[in-house]
Amino acid sequence: MAAQPPLTRHRRRTFTPRHRTRALMRDRDGAAAILNRFRPMVDEAIGRLLSGRPDLLLYQMVRYHLGLEGSRATDQGGKRVRAAMCLLSCEAVGGGAETAAPAAAAVELMHSFTLLHDDIADGDDIRRGRPTVWRKWGVGQAVTAGDALFALANIAAAQLEAEPETVRSVLAELNEATLAVCEGQQLDISYEGRADITVADYLRMVERKTAALFAAACSIGAQIAGSPAPRRASLAEFGREVGLGFQIQDDVLGIWGDPAEMGKPVGSDLRRNKRSLPVVYALNASGGEQLAARLGAGVRSDREAAEVAALIERLGARSFCERMVGERLARGIAALEKAEPEASAADDMSTLASFLMERSR
Amino acid sequence: MAAQPPLTRHRRRTFTPRHRTRALMRDRDGAAAILNRFRPMVDEAIGRLLSGRPDLLLYQMVRYHLGLEGSRATDQGGKRVRAAMCLLSCEAVGGGAETAAPAAAAVELMHSFTLLHDDIADGDDIRRGRPTVWRKWGVGQAVTAGDALFALANIAAAQLEAEPETVRSVLAELNEATLAVCEGQQLDISYEGRADITVADYLRMVERKTAALFAAACSIGAQIAGSPAPRRASLAEFGREVGLGFQIQDDVLGIWGDPAEMGKPVGSDLRRNKRSLPVVYALNASGGEQLAARLGAGVRSDREAAEVAALIERLGARSFCERMVGERLARGIAALEKAEPEASAADDMSTLASFLMERSR
Repeated sequence: MAAQPPLTRHRRRTFTPRHRTRALMRDRDGAAAILNRFRPMVDEAIGRLLSGRPDLLLYQMVRYHLGLEGSRATDQGGKRVRAAMCLLSCEAVGGGAETAAPAAAAVELMHSFTLLHDDIADGDDIRRGRPTVWRKWGVGQAVTAGDALFALANIAAAQLEAEPETVRSVLAELNEATLAVCEGQQLDISYEGRADITVADYLRMVERKTAALFAAACSIGAQIAGSPAPRRASLAEFGREVGLGFQIQDDVLGIWGDPAEMGKPVGSDLRRNKRSLPVVYALNASGGEQLAARLGAGVRSDREAAEVAALIERLGARSFCERMVGERLARGIAALEKAEPEASAADDMSTLASFLMERSR
Repeated sequence: MAAQPPLTRHRRRTFTPRHRTRALMRDRDGAAAILNRFRPMVDEAIGRLLSGRPDLLLYQMVRYHLGLEGSRATDQGGKRVRAAMCLLSCEAVGGGAETAAPAAAAVELMHSFTLLHDDIADGDDIRRGRPTVWRKWGVGQAVTAGDALFALANIAAAQLEAEPETVRSVLAELNEATLAVCEGQQLDISYEGRADITVADYLRMVERKTAALFAAACSIGAQIAGSPAPRRASLAEFGREVGLGFQIQDDVLGIWGDPAEMGKPVGSDLRRNKRSLPVVYALNASGGEQLAARLGAGVRSDREAAEVAALIERLGARSFCERMVGERLARGIAALEKAEPEASAADDMSTLASFLMERSR
């Protein structure tokens, strides 16, 4: 079989359900291989950052949250997706991934702190099948552990071996993206339980809460390789679209995902009356008043969550979200093409992007 | 009267109570003038950083916490002491304070975020006479507002107009200091209610929680002026000692201060069973078992707090703390002299240091 051009197969393969399933399985294996290739590089950079620190509960919490406890790393600390995006983006413009490893670690640490603090804000007990940091050590210590991850992210970025002007610029971009994540988080909390949130409001929120850091990851990786601004902007656009699609898929899994695979109780977004995209779409759809009334009464059990999920699906939200994820993937791939990336990195980036949009956990 | 050499008067004047009172009044006016000279520079740098941001609750919380709400700045957002230390340290080695303004703003923003998160961890309702951010907007939003201040601090530092290598180094130092603050905060929470904390344990905690950022403020100010490492180290040492003295005085005021002047309820450290220095000293003093039993029973009212405060004083803790503050001031001044600072900045630094150690709020 002749080698396929890397960027077209992903657009071609969405035509039939059979193609879709085969492509998904290939993406899943391919994505796992890509993530496994980069993971040691990122975790070593994080390990170096943590070595020689005093023997304190603070670092025990940090290691626990990152899945670095005990003798070996596990994916209980996450898949390091954003770090991989950063490293691939560096390779895509001809850089060596190793040179960007401290920045990739910084992006990952930044993301980790936002998860840790989100768990506090949302009162979530479980993340990736384990008790959350605040459940184990209390709110005060958990807030502090998140702050430590934030500081470590910046220390990692400041250790980049690059032109000092590049380092300054990476640090500025990383913290601007994090500020955008804070804006998104504030909006997300403010939206809870509100009846007047539109799809546009939702996108305004997730562009900040999720897409901004994906975009920065790609832009930073390219910057470290010395890429000129327009190419970097295209890669950032790719990251942004992948981030949006990733978040929408996350919202879908939050309602219809398998709790065992997800490592967290299902329906928690519904119980907290969160404005995830399926809920926002369904509330604004014809017949949405029924859902508003149902959510207003509160969702307390697995059975109630399943009933509400079925109602949201009947209102057309699931297919709307799946369509939107597909659109985001297509736009992301178009932006990637515009960056004229190196073929091998581009292939990996589109495999990873497809996997993220079709993942089941 | 002949002009006095700037560094000796502070050591001379502690001999008699009459001299002390006169010197304190002079320090208070002098310190206010120093802080007022720098405040606009710092608040303008913070203002520039916030201008053009989207109109979101996030920035409303940030401005409220910083005392920048409404038409003018008030000292409800703090005295900007660490920023002044940074700017004076820059002047002390011959730099212009203006050049260090973004770094001073960064130090102040970093400090602000730690206060905001501490209020959550400690469950404090009131800061500087106003409801704390978490009391007004809830824990989730308050955690996010603190994170935004953290990101803004790094954005400010990245905007420094200095050699890019200096900017990188400032960012590294600032975040290492913040990580130390997190270590101290973790220890502080872990110490609560424990019977076996020694004065050495206490110092280990406050060196991180308070002194590290004071030290970094001074070191960073000097670094921006291009000061060589040994001189910077002496200024950092000055900052460290002032930070320790400042914290011990804070602990003293937390038990014996005037609640009206402090802007917060008195005895809150006792009610929370915090290991402040007076408590640690008294628990380890002969007769300390009596205090341990009393604290174990809980402190619930103003009257109970006053009784326990009297007991702590009888155990010799108040005079021990005051002696230690005096020692820290003397060591700080000695370190300052070693840095061979410019006379005018040095005079201001010792005035500010004396004021911080003798302040009543």
